[in-house]
Amino acid sequence: MSTERIPVGLVGVTGYTGMELARILARHPSFDLVAATSRAEAGRKLADVYPFLLGMDIGAVEISQPDPDQIAAKCSLVFLAVPHGAAMDMAADLLARDVKVVDLSADFRLRDTDSYAQWYGLEHRHAALVREAVYGLPELYADAIARTRLVANPGCYPTSVILGLLPLLRNGLVETDTIVADSKSGATGAGRKAAVGTLFCEVADSFRAYNLGRHRHTPEIEQELSRLAGIPLAVSFNPHLLPINRGILSTLYARFIDETPTVEALYDIYAETYAKHEFVRVLPPGRLPETRWVRGTMYCDIGLVCDPRTNRAVVVSAIDNLCRGASGQAVACANLMSGLPLAEGLSMPPLMP
Amino acid sequence: MSTERIPVGLVGVTGYTGMELARILARHPSFDLVAATSRAEAGRKLADVYPFLLGMDIGAVEISQPDPDQIAAKCSLVFLAVPHGAAMDMAADLLARDVKVVDLSADFRLRDTDSYAQWYGLEHRHAALVREAVYGLPELYADAIARTRLVANPGCYPTSVILGLLPLLRNGLVETDTIVADSKSGATGAGRKAAVGTLFCEVADSFRAYNLGRHRHTPEIEQELSRLAGIPLAVSFNPHLLPINRGILSTLYARFIDETPTVEALYDIYAETYAKHEFVRVLPPGRLPETRWVRGTMYCDIGLVCDPRTNRAVVVSAIDNLCRGASGQAVACANLMSGLPLAEGLSMPPLMP
Amino acid sequence: MSTERIPVGLVGVTGYTGMELARILARHPSFDLVAATSRAEAGRKLADVYPFLLGMDIGAVEISQPDPDQIAAKCSLVFLAVPHGAAMDMAADLLARDVKVVDLSADFRLRDTDSYAQWYGLEHRHAALVREAVYGLPELYADAIARTRLVANPGCYPTSVILGLLPLLRNGLVETDTIVADSKSGATGAGRKAAVGTLFCEVADSFRAYNLGRHRHTPEIEQELSRLAGIPLAVSFNPHLLPINRGILSTLYARFIDETPTVEALYDIYAETYAKHEFVRVLPPGRLPETRWVRGTMYCDIGLVCDPRTNRAVVVSAIDNLCRGASGQAVACANLMSGLPLAEGLSMPPLMP
Amino acid sequence: MSTERIPVGLVGVTGYTGMELARILARHPSFDLVAATSRAEAGRKLADVYPFLLGMDIGAVEISQPDPDQIAAKCSLVFLAVPHGAAMDMAADLLARDVKVVDLSADFRLRDTDSYAQWYGLEHRHAALVREAVYGLPELYADAIARTRLVANPGCYPTSVILGLLPLLRNGLVETDTIVADSKSGATGAGRKAAVGTLFCEVADSFRAYNLGRHRHTPEIEQELSRLAGIPLAVSFNPHLLPINRGILSTLYARFIDETPTVEALYDIYAETYAKHEFVRVLPPGRLPETRWVRGTMYCDIGLVCDPRTNRAVVVSAIDNLCRGASGQAVACANLMSGLPLAEGLSMPPLMP
Repeated sequence: MSTERIPVGLVGVTGYTGMELARILARHPSFDLVAATSRAEAGRKLADVYPFLLGMDIGAVEISQPDPDQIAAKCSLVFLAVPHGAAMDMAADLLARDVKVVDLSADFRLRDTDSYAQWYGLEHRHAALVREAVYGLPELYADAIARTRLVANPGCYPTSVILGLLPLLRNGLVETDTIVADSKSGATGAGRKAAVGTLFCEVADSFRAYNLGRHRHTPEIEQELSRLAGIPLAVSFNPHLLPINRGILSTLYARFIDETPTVEALYDIYAETYAKHEFVRVLPPGRLPETRWVRGTMYCDIGLVCDPRTNRAVVVSAIDNLCRGASGQAVACANLMSGLPLAEGLSMPPLMP
Repeated sequence: MSTERIPVGLVGVTGYTGMELARILARHPSFDLVAATSRAEAGRKLADVYPFLLGMDIGAVEISQPDPDQIAAKCSLVFLAVPHGAAMDMAADLLARDVKVVDLSADFRLRDTDSYAQWYGLEHRHAALVREAVYGLPELYADAIARTRLVANPGCYPTSVILGLLPLLRNGLVETDTIVADSKSGATGAGRKAAVGTLFCEVADSFRAYNLGRHRHTPEIEQELSRLAGIPLAVSFNPHLLPINRGILSTLYARFIDETPTVEALYDIYAETYAKHEFVRVLPPGRLPETRWVRGTMYCDIGLVCDPRTNRAVVVSAIDNLCRGASGQAVACANLMSGLPLAEGLSMPPLMP
Repeated sequence: MSTERIPVGLVGVTGYTGMELARILARHPSFDLVAATSRAEAGRKLADVYPFLLGMDIGAVEISQPDPDQIAAKCSLVFLAVPHGAAMDMAADLLARDVKVVDLSADFRLRDTDSYAQWYGLEHRHAALVREAVYGLPELYADAIARTRLVANPGCYPTSVILGLLPLLRNGLVETDTIVADSKSGATGAGRKAAVGTLFCEVADSFRAYNLGRHRHTPEIEQELSRLAGIPLAVSFNPHLLPINRGILSTLYARFIDETPTVEALYDIYAETYAKHEFVRVLPPGRLPETRWVRGTMYCDIGLVCDPRTNRAVVVSAIDNLCRGASGQAVACANLMSGLPLAEGLSMPPLMP
Repeated sequence: MSTERIPVGLVGVTGYTGMELARILARHPSFDLVAATSRAEAGRKLADVYPFLLGMDIGAVEISQPDPDQIAAKCSLVFLAVPHGAAMDMAADLLARDVKVVDLSADFRLRDTDSYAQWYGLEHRHAALVREAVYGLPELYADAIARTRLVANPGCYPTSVILGLLPLLRNGLVETDTIVADSKSGATGAGRKAAVGTLFCEVADSFRAYNLGRHRHTPEIEQELSRLAGIPLAVSFNPHLLPINRGILSTLYARFIDETPTVEALYDIYAETYAKHEFVRVLPPGRLPETRWVRGTMYCDIGLVCDPRTNRAVVVSAIDNLCRGASGQAVACANLMSGLPLAEGLSMPPLMP
């Protein structure tokens, strides 16, 4: 541990992704959190804001104002856990000071800045950096991640949808114009901002859909799936809010081009695709994932169904939206960017039940 | 109230549908529960088994063994809340004794007894009664329900799916070969039998899919949708288990045949279809249902989205699986069979939150 | 229903108590909601704010600004569901205009205005009205409630604690200086204000204590218990936050003065005390209440344990904090103030499960 | 990791404590699970029974029948996660074969076998072993644990109650005849047996007390507290069931003998008592614990209140009932018995939220 550890920073500690980064970094053997920022909480220690960190070294880190010079003076890599729009400037400031950046916001995910402007209602101010950024999905871009200084950490929904459909599209097994992604997310996905709509009593013991067909993760999903399919495609992406803290389960529908394969045949394709990817677990035929099986981890669990009645593949993928869908994936990217093994500090078993 | 009330019976009190019937009948102004049966609990009073009924007249009803003669001696109408397979014989026994029957099981829902045998693994022993039974969805069959002596009370998932797609199919607006129903149900739908899989700690803070493409409600859904469409169709029906007690939310996907209408145009069609059906609430454009808005009630709430990007209708329907999806709908049918208003004893507001 | 119904108003619709009043009034046979106010939502209809009210008459009520003249012109009785401090002035304004008032806030609960000032940090501006107000617990003050024009509706915790201890103290069975009330409340008790601390993800799958020994309901509990005991007493009252929507369960500890009675003997005392009070259900020995058994209702369920090892009575009382602990009790008081039966419009069975 | 690892066994994998042991051992650096037994699941692999273990070495362990010879041939230490009554014989069998044992059941916790017979309705068959067993609470018995071959792993409730009251009793600060422990536990504490009472729909969105004054953990609590106080004492111990998976929060009431100290003074006493115990975190005055802050960990968090109005200490202690209250504590004891640091493999941060 000691002098060898890499000094890292965390900009934006008060949201759930910041909290999750603190949880992971608390026990990361190679990263040393030396700077944590928050405009609202500056001056307090991390453990004052998050008593669950009491008794750990990380709890003693003092929160400061987000000053790029001060951060750059201490850190060689920084995680940005601030809203889109704000992240791009901070990223630019830090990169200009020779600090590597993993941005958890959406600011560098879309290759097409027009698309960004359209879906996020904001002109991009750093188009050059967009061209440089690498989309931080290790199963697709591990090598590029290892070489870049700027990672656009994937959205939570896109992570679950892309990993679930990847083998189908890369192998040209399904029609590209009938894909439906019906996704369900835990409430940490809605953020930690005070709001009536995400109060306990507005979410508990209930279930609802939202932003059907117009969620901002749609272009991100389509960008990566189109690339995999080799042609532009549109996806019907439809999110729902689950009364749980963590977890995304996406039920993915696609029609086979040829006749329905057996589930065993499809399993073989998936198993082969993900053979070398330790964080994707293809469940044996007959089993379907549960969000709790991946709770607190980097795993993406995938279950497969082939329905000959409708000639459809029904793929179910489950991730922890906070860990795999955000902060854990960010640490995985940082690992690669730092020459560390992908799984460094990320091999915790799921918290079950 | 008094001497005018209609004496009714309840066969099978120990499951959640039996419990819900007791809740509704406790305050029904025109039905008087005079017989309640359970092999396991015979000899106890309802309020001993269900302390939440303490202090209500219904709590004093003594549970008896399910003897058709004794039931028929007391009741003019009986609700069957026993498993499929067992229900059909009890129904036959009671009908033979001039008692009207509302069967909450699947035994009389499928017109085609071959389909029944195939999906339920059981030869039907009362095919003649199948031909006589009326599918108890008031929005489709109110008149026939009022005239029959045997109602096959619809399944919970089919109620949500059929009501959600009815206006699209009846008006020929969508393709019939690309329909996907992604349904999510609360855990009361899994029944009240001791089982590890539905223990609190196996369901709470988690989410999972099950029986994808092979749930037994599939042929029931297809039977009614085919009839509405005028041609046989297959549906990709895929259920999920929510960590909530009550509620089904179905997200329904169908591609428009012509170009995408405005959501306002689609709303008008839905609003007109359901104008005279007090228990279906079509939400204004821009609003999507939440299961809690229908908790404890007969309402089916429907939200509409038209997605021009994929030329799809995305319809979201929400019901309370126990009330509208089972026992409340059974009471509504019993109301019609007894010459009472559909909503008699069923106009409770949702329990919010 | 028609012309006989009593026109009532609701000041403050946007909180959970306002929402619950709307739910109850939606089906009340004798009250007609003719005015509903909210500064934030004025101009909208109730069903626009609360879509669960769609399809009911009450949903069409238009929300207005809280103007005493306009309210008094329409209503003969008004429910105040606004914060303490604000309620007292509105109560004075309405009483001056000959409108009866049921105040759900704490403003008129404490007889002693010094105590009010001390616990609420606020000088009382209407001491004369305090002397006139009746504490709205029907089991204690039904006659006075029927005659007053101003009811101080009890707090949720006090309702559960007072009803649970009443027979012990009135009969002088327990020491008055060792009483402990360990109370657990659902999250609706925390109100419907946007706040990080009551977000779903801050409450779900967790449990915590708060305000131990210094919750504002303490003096209210002590006021009524002292009156029952005939001497001043102090209670150790300690609230906790449950990850559920509705329900308070209070576990109440008191040492017997004489030797430990049998639980049957204690049951007889409780049963006799509450024999004529339909909304208190004393459970038979061996049974303990569950919050779900009273969900959505006016019931206070009480379970009894006599522990000879420690010579203690352990009494468990359960209520629905929103219905019995707030809005339902307010309607019960309004019933009495209007010459109606206590239970008018309040005899709904619990929503189970 | 390799050849140095200590081979351990797990008897009883199908309950929640067995599951939790698997979770912890999956990443333990010094223990190697080489035997796992279950009568019901013998022949399957751990990951077949628990898919959340897929992709980990431990998942490949094959479950066998619980044969003492076979277990002893492979293991130097065994965790017993089977019910009381069954555990004592297996412990004797394994000890006779020179295998160290950590018994998670109650069989060796009570020094007094008469008390065992009375509370568990069972004559103890291995009284000599009872005398030899060490109560596995590291804060009290670390040295003895390190030297014994048989640990009686503490119950979940006793762990939370004893740690919460220890400084008060050891320092003689409170009366010993008025102690009340009001404890609330998550549902994993009820075990993983199929039962209607712990179905999701019987526990969710509700709260209840059970076994008031007669829970089997009472004599265990009294044994250790009496020893700390130096005189026999009786405690009013009263458990409740929370609708959460993991976590116990105990609210502990005791009257000061002298006048009420300041909370700062009491904090100093607690902080000093636990200064060298890394897994007890005394929260600063003004803070109260939440079960989620210790989720998945060995921490016992303690919050303190001094109430001068009633001269009472109100101590709130929170643990994870499965980790600290069972399997984690068992691994901590095994660490000590094996000459390893107490915290080996147990330093995971809490899963928040």
